[in-house]
Order: sequence, then C-alpha cells, then structure tokens
Amino acid sequence: MGMSPQARLLRVLRDRGAQSKAELGDLVELSRSRVVAELDRMIELGLVEEAGLAESRGGRRPAVVRVASAVRFAGVNIGATSVDVAATDGELEVLEHVAEELDVREGPQRVLDRVVELVGKLRDQGHLPRLNGLGIGLPGPVSFRDGVPYAPPIMPGWDQYPVRDTLMRELGCPVLVDNDVNVMALGEKQAGVARNSDDLLFVKIGTGVGCGILVHGEVYRGANGSAGDIGHIQVDEDGPACGCGNLGCLEAFFSGAALARSAEAVARTGESPFLGMRLAERGTLAATDVADALAAGDPVALRLVREGGRHLGLVLAGLVSFFNPSLIVIGGGVAGIGHVLLAEIRSAVYRRSLPLATNNLPLVMSELGEDAGVIGAARMISDLVYAEPTR
Amino acid sequence: MGMSPQARLLRVLRDRGAQSKAELGDLVELSRSRVVAELDRMIELGLVEEAGLAESRGGRRPAVVRVASAVRFAGVNIGATSVDVAATDGELEVLEHVAEELDVREGPQRVLDRVVELVGKLRDQGHLPRLNGLGIGLPGPVSFRDGVPYAPPIMPGWDQYPVRDTLMRELGCPVLVDNDVNVMALGEKQAGVARNSDDLLFVKIGTGVGCGILVHGEVYRGANGSAGDIGHIQVDEDGPACGCGNLGCLEAFFSGAALARSAEAVARTGESPFLGMRLAERGTLAATDVADALAAGDPVALRLVREGGRHLGLVLAGLVSFFNPSLIVIGGGVAGIGHVLLAEIRSAVYRRSLPLATNNLPLVMSELGEDAGVIGAARMISDLVYAEPTR
Repeated sequence: MGMSPQARLLRVLRDRGAQSKAELGDLVELSRSRVVAELDRMIELGLVEEAGLAESRGGRRPAVVRVASAVRFAGVNIGATSVDVAATDGELEVLEHVAEELDVREGPQRVLDRVVELVGKLRDQGHLPRLNGLGIGLPGPVSFRDGVPYAPPIMPGWDQYPVRDTLMRELGCPVLVDNDVNVMALGEKQAGVARNSDDLLFVKIGTGVGCGILVHGEVYRGANGSAGDIGHIQVDEDGPACGCGNLGCLEAFFSGAALARSAEAVARTGESPFLGMRLAERGTLAATDVADALAAGDPVALRLVREGGRHLGLVLAGLVSFFNPSLIVIGGGVAGIGHVLLAEIRSAVYRRSLPLATNNLPLVMSELGEDAGVIGAARMISDLVYAEPTR
Repeated sequence: MGMSPQARLLRVLRDRGAQSKAELGDLVELSRSRVVAELDRMIELGLVEEAGLAESRGGRRPAVVRVASAVRFAGVNIGATSVDVAATDGELEVLEHVAEELDVREGPQRVLDRVVELVGKLRDQGHLPRLNGLGIGLPGPVSFRDGVPYAPPIMPGWDQYPVRDTLMRELGCPVLVDNDVNVMALGEKQAGVARNSDDLLFVKIGTGVGCGILVHGEVYRGANGSAGDIGHIQVDEDGPACGCGNLGCLEAFFSGAALARSAEAVARTGESPFLGMRLAERGTLAATDVADALAAGDPVALRLVREGGRHLGLVLAGLVSFFNPSLIVIGGGVAGIGHVLLAEIRSAVYRRSLPLATNNLPLVMSELGEDAGVIGAARMISDLVYAEPTR
C-alpha cells in the first residue's frame, strides 16, 4: 500500500537530480524533520550524499542532496541475436553501453555467462566500482515474480531457467527479469519520448508483435503477467492461419516474420522485381529487405507495409477505445519502414477510435532505439533497490 | 504519491471491520505509536470510535477501534429510466435502498431534485443522521475531474451540467460523479463477486455496451477519462453500419438496442412466431422480449443471443490478451439471457485468448444486481472522504 518515504525520495532524486532538502519535502509531501531523518539514514546506507549548498532564496543557503555518486546499476537487454549491457549511475545516466551479436538460441548458460563477462568488462573499465543491482529484459514471456522465462517461443532451452537467481548468485546483487517490451516501455518513460506520459503503450514490432503497458508510470502486468500479449488478437475471423492454430491473428497479418513471408511471396510471383532479385541473391528474405525495397521506391513493398500498418492500426484502435492511453510508442526493428507504417497506423486509429480517446493522442516512433531496453532495465531494478528499507 | 496513513487505516477498517490497534499497525505497516496518534486524531474528527476490548491473546485485552457508527454515505445510481439511492454506514453496509422509475430524459434539474428528495426521505427515516459524502453514477460518459457528464448520448440536457457542484451545494457534503460502469465495478469489488480481484473488467450490457476497468482495485480512467468505451470497437470491417458512422462496431452487432432491432426483424419475417405475436401485441420489442422468448424455448431467440454473445466474446478475447484480467463480470439489464450469453462469451474467450491469460479466468454474472451501482458509488465517495486530511 503506497510507496515508502525512502522510495519516494530516491525516485525524486533519480528523476529530477540534486535537490535542496526543503524542495524535497515539498515534492514528496513529508515534513522537514521526517525528510532530514530519512536522508540521514540513506546517507549512512550510501544511497544519498550531500552536494554542497544551493543558491540562497533569502536566508541561509540550503543544503543540497543527490543520489550518491557511487551508486551503479547495470541494464541488460537480450534480443533474438544481440546482447546489450549498459552501466548507469544512480540517476540512470548511461555511462557506457556495450553491445554484441549473440544468438539467444545458444541457450541460457552461454548467454548469461556472456552477460556476466560484459558486466566484468564494464567493471574493469571503471564504470562499475560497485553494482547496486541489475535489470534484464528477455525477448519472450517472463514470470516476473519468479524471474524465469515462461515457454518463450524463440528461446529454446530457456523455459523456466532461473535467470534471476543465476545472475544474483554470480553478481551478488539484486536482479529483476522482465520481457523486453516492458523494459523498453520503462526506458522511454525514463529518458525517451514518454517522459511526461503516465498511461502509455509501447508496441514492439519484431519477429512478432508485443506491447508494454504503463499505468500511472508503472508496468502493468495483469493477473498472470501476460498483459500486452497482443500478437494473437484476432483481426479478421476469416484471415490467414497463424502459427498458434487460430485464424486471422494480428501476427499472421503483420509482424517481422509475416512481412518476410509476404516479401518472399511477391518475389516469387515476380510482382516485385526488386525483391525478386534480392531473393535470387540471398535465397531468403527478411523484413529489412522490405525496408530496402521501400527506400528504393518499390510500390509493392509500399503496399505490403501499408497493409500491415492498417491491420496493426485496427487492433490499436480497439485498444485505444478500451485503454485511452496518453501516448503510443512504436519501436522494435522497424527502422526504415517507420514513416509509412506510422501514417497507416495513425489513419486507422484516428478513423476508428472515439474522438475523446484520440484527442491529443500522440502516436510516435521510439526515440531511444537500442538504449530503451537497457535504460528501462536499469530503471526497473532501481525501483526495487530504492524501495528496500535497508541494505 | 501513495496513500496517507489516515486513508490506509480507514480503508482497512471499512473493508475488514473493527480491529485492535495492534492488528491495524500490522495491516498498514505503521509503527504502534504512529497508529495511536493517527487514531486519536481521527477519533477527534468523528471518523473512528473505540469499540471495547478484544479477546486477550495472552496479555492485556487490546483496545478495538472501528469506523465511527455515525458515519454515513449516500450511493446513487441513475439509470436510463430509474433512480436508486442507498444509505450506507461507514463500512458501506446498505442500511436502506430506495428505487423508483424516473426517465433520465426529464433532465438534470428534475432528476437531481428527486435525488435530493430521496436523500431527504432517507434522512427522515433516520438512516442519514449525518451525511459524510455522496457518490453518484450516471448512464453516460463523465468527466470525473469536473464532475459533469460529457456529451452523453442518452441524456439530453445533461451535457456538462454541473452535477457534482449542484449536489454539493444542495447537500453540503463532498460529492463525486462517475459513469455507471465504473461505480458498478467498484460495487462488485466492495461487496460482490469481485471482492478478491484487483484487475478486473465489469461489462455492462444495457442499451449500449460499456466496460469498467479496475487496476490494482482502483478505477482506471485513462488519459481523458474515456477508458472502457468498448461499444465501438470494430468486430468486423464489413459488418453492419453503427450509429457512430463506422461499420461493424460491437454495438451494431450486440447491445440491448441491437437485440431489440434483431427481434423486430425476426418478428416481421415470421421466423419467430413468439416474437411476431409479441410485436403484434405491443407494436415494439425490447431486449427483455428476447429473454421471454428464450425462456419460452424459442429457437430464433436462442440464435440471436448466441450470435450476440459470440461477437461480444470476440472483443473480450482481445481485451483478455491485452489486459490479462483476473476476473470478468457481466452485468446490466441482461437477466434472463445471462446463462446462454455467458456460455457463448466463455467459448469465444477461451478459444481465442492465450492459455496463460485464460488460466483461472472466471467469467461470471454480476452478483449484486441493482445494488452494485449504489454500493460502488458509496465506495467511491468514501475513498475521497477517508483520504481527506481534516474535516
């Protein structure tokens, strides 16, 4: 029930930077004496430090405090074929970000070992003199409570692997695990386009389509942690068969995988000479080839992206009516088709949703790109660490 | 940011009844001395009272406190053709519930005058020796912040009428206004089938279809207060025209109004002799006539209800994937068709949503019926009154 005074104070210092004690009291609605007592305790814990005196506002110059400069978090984002690890300070500024290719199908031992090595590398470089906690996003469903992947379709060998407990043991610090769309949504909230939005949807278009939901600025996970699983919402009862066994799911109409399938189809029929040549060269096509075709002015690629955007837009229109978000952010590996996609999604949403719900509803591309996941993962663990009563 | 200690204490006393001070401290995670200080202040304010001594658990018998027995709330629910007013105590037990027919189209002055008269009647009967606050639900969109209806389709003359301020002035107590599905959802949470659910949908099938959303036990309203407006989510791109100007909206397929229209159609074609006779008798049909036909074993009525349930189920299946609720409650004027409807909705939701989201997802009828609205309205205002620092 509610946040502890410590958590409230540390979140304000994290998100607004150094503050005078008087300003802090106003911001968290606590008495001056309570703020001072809490800060003294947090200074002892090494979470907060004095940071000199502020400009005078008439009387004595007030003492300023900030998150202790030694506080450090690691934010990790595992993609289908990539590992990103960032070191941040206690205000979640990224100090260093390392990224490398690594196939998630190599399995949890190999991938988590590499995460630990990269954290060690950041430590050796001096970015992590201390590690207060680590957050990690995975490209599949996660049981947040248990810190394990839950039947993740593109992560063979990871099902119910103890990701949280393994990393906690290896690194000796608090760890939280969530799926990548949730941490990306948090990242945009922390440092991206969603900074001033509280109720928002982050839609990731990758191999599949997923959605991170923030309610009052916090991740909304639902009863079993599966909230945001929009890839199998039905778009058309008579639509194409989906891998899940149903007909007409969103992902059967539009996703990275669906786009690649459609591209191969129009390459084979000769409808798109551009994609036909590309297929002949490479033997297989990906969504990025559609982006290349679009950039080259290929009208068939334009049609494919438009149709995809329209189907995604129809689903989002329903979610806008239901959820009335203040912002929708589109992210994931869609660079290059973003502009056309966004126009189609907007048109479907604005046409189909109620005026009251679409008033001032911005529908935008992710601002942070690869940084969204690591910053969001760092924010997730900072929320836990800052809420802990003692350390 | 977070709830005040007073609000937390009063909510626990409201929802769990009398408690010893020691138990209270555990339940709200406050120190014993803080609890005692808060309680002393609340006793002075007349919100809490001593209630004797509890059974001993070894040592001295601990002092028990409860919400002051003089605390009273009024819960009001305005339907399209009805006014319900209940008097509750501070634990939201209904002391008396008066209901009468009144057409909302008679306008705000007439209807609100009658609300004030019915509150006076409850006072004269001794149920409201004092009135700490009044909550009211309206059958249309409401700007919760401003306490006014917002372009309500079935409430001519009510648009932006100052409902909250009028009742505050007339009754001299705090007032909150919300739409009926939100207060019905709160009512089921307080005293009905949703008592142990935090993330739930309350779907009301009336003239239209609306949805109340609770997140962590609180009403979720979205960015502009329009969250839950599911009546115009598209079910089928090529579906029938809806009053809103789009094609294939849920309400065009299924709602009280759509059911009545379909009933008149099958009455005219002679497909349903039962409904044909009923139409000949009355000149017009309502959803209740379909319920009667169903009860009489009319196969065409059965088909209409099944088709409606299937369309509603398709929309709910998408919302289950997105929102992963722990419970869905179906309410509104659907008594008599509930059983068939529920079976169809369940079948569509369980077939179309992901297994993780439908695991243990109960889909049930409202338990409180007419009481849901008034109890929920009383809960809404009690949350405000209990959170106020002083009075």
